[in-house]
Amino acid sequence: MRIEIICTGDEVLTGKIVNTNFSYMSQKLEDVGLAVQWETTVGDHREDLLRAFQLAGERADAVIVNGGLGPTVDDLSQEIAAQAAGVDLVLHEGWLARMEDMFQRRSRVMPPNNRKQAMLPATAEMIDNPVGTACGFAVDIGKARFFFTPGVPRELRRMLEEQIIPRLLARSGVQTTIYLKRFHSYGLGESHVDAMLKGIEDLVPEGTVKLGFRAHYPQLETKLTVRGTDMDDVRTKLAPVEQEVRKRLGNFILAEDDATLEGTILNHLTQGHATLSIVEMFTSGQIAARVAPLPGAEAVFRRGVVARSVADIYTAVGLTDAPLDGAVTPAMAETIAITARRQTGATHALAVLVELDAGADRMDFGGTICLAIATAHDVASRRSRIVGGREWVRLGAVEMGLDCLRRYLQGLPVQERIDFEKTDEKP
Amino acid sequence: MRIEIICTGDEVLTGKIVNTNFSYMSQKLEDVGLAVQWETTVGDHREDLLRAFQLAGERADAVIVNGGLGPTVDDLSQEIAAQAAGVDLVLHEGWLARMEDMFQRRSRVMPPNNRKQAMLPATAEMIDNPVGTACGFAVDIGKARFFFTPGVPRELRRMLEEQIIPRLLARSGVQTTIYLKRFHSYGLGESHVDAMLKGIEDLVPEGTVKLGFRAHYPQLETKLTVRGTDMDDVRTKLAPVEQEVRKRLGNFILAEDDATLEGTILNHLTQGHATLSIVEMFTSGQIAARVAPLPGAEAVFRRGVVARSVADIYTAVGLTDAPLDGAVTPAMAETIAITARRQTGATHALAVLVELDAGADRMDFGGTICLAIATAHDVASRRSRIVGGREWVRLGAVEMGLDCLRRYLQGLPVQERIDFEKTDEKP
Repeated sequence: MRIEIICTGDEVLTGKIVNTNFSYMSQKLEDVGLAVQWETTVGDHREDLLRAFQLAGERADAVIVNGGLGPTVDDLSQEIAAQAAGVDLVLHEGWLARMEDMFQRRSRVMPPNNRKQAMLPATAEMIDNPVGTACGFAVDIGKARFFFTPGVPRELRRMLEEQIIPRLLARSGVQTTIYLKRFHSYGLGESHVDAMLKGIEDLVPEGTVKLGFRAHYPQLETKLTVRGTDMDDVRTKLAPVEQEVRKRLGNFILAEDDATLEGTILNHLTQGHATLSIVEMFTSGQIAARVAPLPGAEAVFRRGVVARSVADIYTAVGLTDAPLDGAVTPAMAETIAITARRQTGATHALAVLVELDAGADRMDFGGTICLAIATAHDVASRRSRIVGGREWVRLGAVEMGLDCLRRYLQGLPVQERIDFEKTDEKP
Repeated sequence: MRIEIICTGDEVLTGKIVNTNFSYMSQKLEDVGLAVQWETTVGDHREDLLRAFQLAGERADAVIVNGGLGPTVDDLSQEIAAQAAGVDLVLHEGWLARMEDMFQRRSRVMPPNNRKQAMLPATAEMIDNPVGTACGFAVDIGKARFFFTPGVPRELRRMLEEQIIPRLLARSGVQTTIYLKRFHSYGLGESHVDAMLKGIEDLVPEGTVKLGFRAHYPQLETKLTVRGTDMDDVRTKLAPVEQEVRKRLGNFILAEDDATLEGTILNHLTQGHATLSIVEMFTSGQIAARVAPLPGAEAVFRRGVVARSVADIYTAVGLTDAPLDGAVTPAMAETIAITARRQTGATHALAVLVELDAGADRMDFGGTICLAIATAHDVASRRSRIVGGREWVRLGAVEMGLDCLRRYLQGLPVQERIDFEKTDEKP
């Protein structure tokens, strides 16, 4: 089945808005085994919209159109859809009543121009939007079935997942259940993980499990798309493959599915009735900013300290014998973590020290990271070098700090060679 | 002149990569008075690429193609460009020599498959890429001039700004200099600023200055695109309009052009030989994360403290009489700012306290913000309410904290009604 997507609207066409609706839709379709083959963006412009609908109607079997369902005059999707389908626009009484009801429940009178949102092509199938006034619909144009969706991301997401993907899967004729299993890791590059998981798809009949990746430095998402007759079949087919992925990626898996690194850390601390303080340098508060805002973190997160130099950090945690300026060391990080833990009364403290190389920012600009995790009876530390520019070092230091804490809490080695670090010493 | 953009590559088409190259290109063209009318995304697929080139060649006067110039077999742009133009691919000796030189300077031998990057359509004009091995080029397909650009953002940016935009402007036949003037503000919505600046374009001859906006909450960018015969003419035409914008937006302008809010703050502090400590709650270190990483901040930023409750903050700054749990107040923020300043030895301290409403996150979820700025002899504070969900409140609190500090440093009132705050009291 050939699928195309058409994105509409001047804000997207002029680049005022980055088109995340498109990448979201395309990924969602990939996740259920469908593929988008062509995307078109046009503005709020009658002739271009009509031409885009006609061209896609000649090429594709199914087309998703995003945007242009609003109440204002520059929202043209219903009107041009009717024109392209060769039918009239007619009032959908049911949707008009729904809109009037929505307004009434908010004690507001519906403005007259919202009536436009209930005008659909005569041959259209209405598609429900439970969270907004823009009515979705499906209609045939050329040889393709067109699905019209709202531009508001929250409304699009509900409609795509609940209404449109099931219709697309039904049209694709494949009677299958599709399930997406995800593993999140830190420290291994995409091509490395790809090599580590070589042959994993062959553990089950051909085409049952498809391996894929989504890299967003510093994390990597490993995806298994599983096809089966129903969820029981999916689970049976997935079981040996997911077990093998866990075995091969081992300590590097920091979370699965919707879980996150910071969520994993928070769960471990919460379950152990533990509390956490964080001391940061150069990462400027970005480690605390990952953990502290989580729901439930108020009971765990004790204090965050941010400073620009080792000397300032020593003062901040109440140490008096600040070392003269020199290279950061794991021992320094240990001293700081131990003292900060004691000072703030937390059960755990994480200290992340970063020392940047001298000179201007450039691709091979690097930094030395020394981090430590302290509890009342124990301290663990590691030293690492990351190269790739200031921002790259910063992102890497934040993730390494959190991942080492995750490893410590899970009883795994804090020291394990990762792809992003350089073994060579600082020049 | 009708301009189209074609983005190529499976990573963009499948949504693995969000297409920021497109929004960047479209905005850059808008900024110089050119407009993109149609965008197409296709994968690394021969037939779709050829069809996309042919269709754009029928409709447009100029087409920018992005991606597909790499050394691997799935990079097809040169080959399909030659096919669409009806010419052969020929080796560009000059580019081959350039590439070999680039590899040599890095003490590496050029892999054989890089040779492919020097193969251009016979009729192509080579376009320089000073920062990579992907050679840009221009060629006629149908009635349009096609410009082929690399997918690597850094390489695309250089080539678009230095090579392609001048060519497009020359082709558009308009002998003008175009200049973009930008103002950044916080606290006023786009429609509000639009109304405040009503008639501003009429201060100069019609079509000389065009007003536009780019909203990225919590900040708003107001753009003036100015056309003139040369830079002197541009400056003459811009002068009365920019003066009027400064007058009307007044205290709300936090920076102009490439300057930023945090940069403005850092400049003021640096010039006054001042230092800064920051105490945050709920914003989780995001205020410190804006200031502390800036080049030069090491001399200014003294310390950041992050905690989850007023009681914890009191302890962290060394206060013993923490109030029992109750509403945050400006007086509390003042006490904390005064104490933190004294404790850390900074000349200035900013304290931002946030108290969230009870209940689940939702669109009308709100928070109360109390912030204070203290120096040795003075303290200023303000209280505000922001509604719109947890993340909205967090972003608003970060920006309000920084903007109030900017206002304080510039001798402007810290209290000034903004569009994002609710005047009604917490229910």
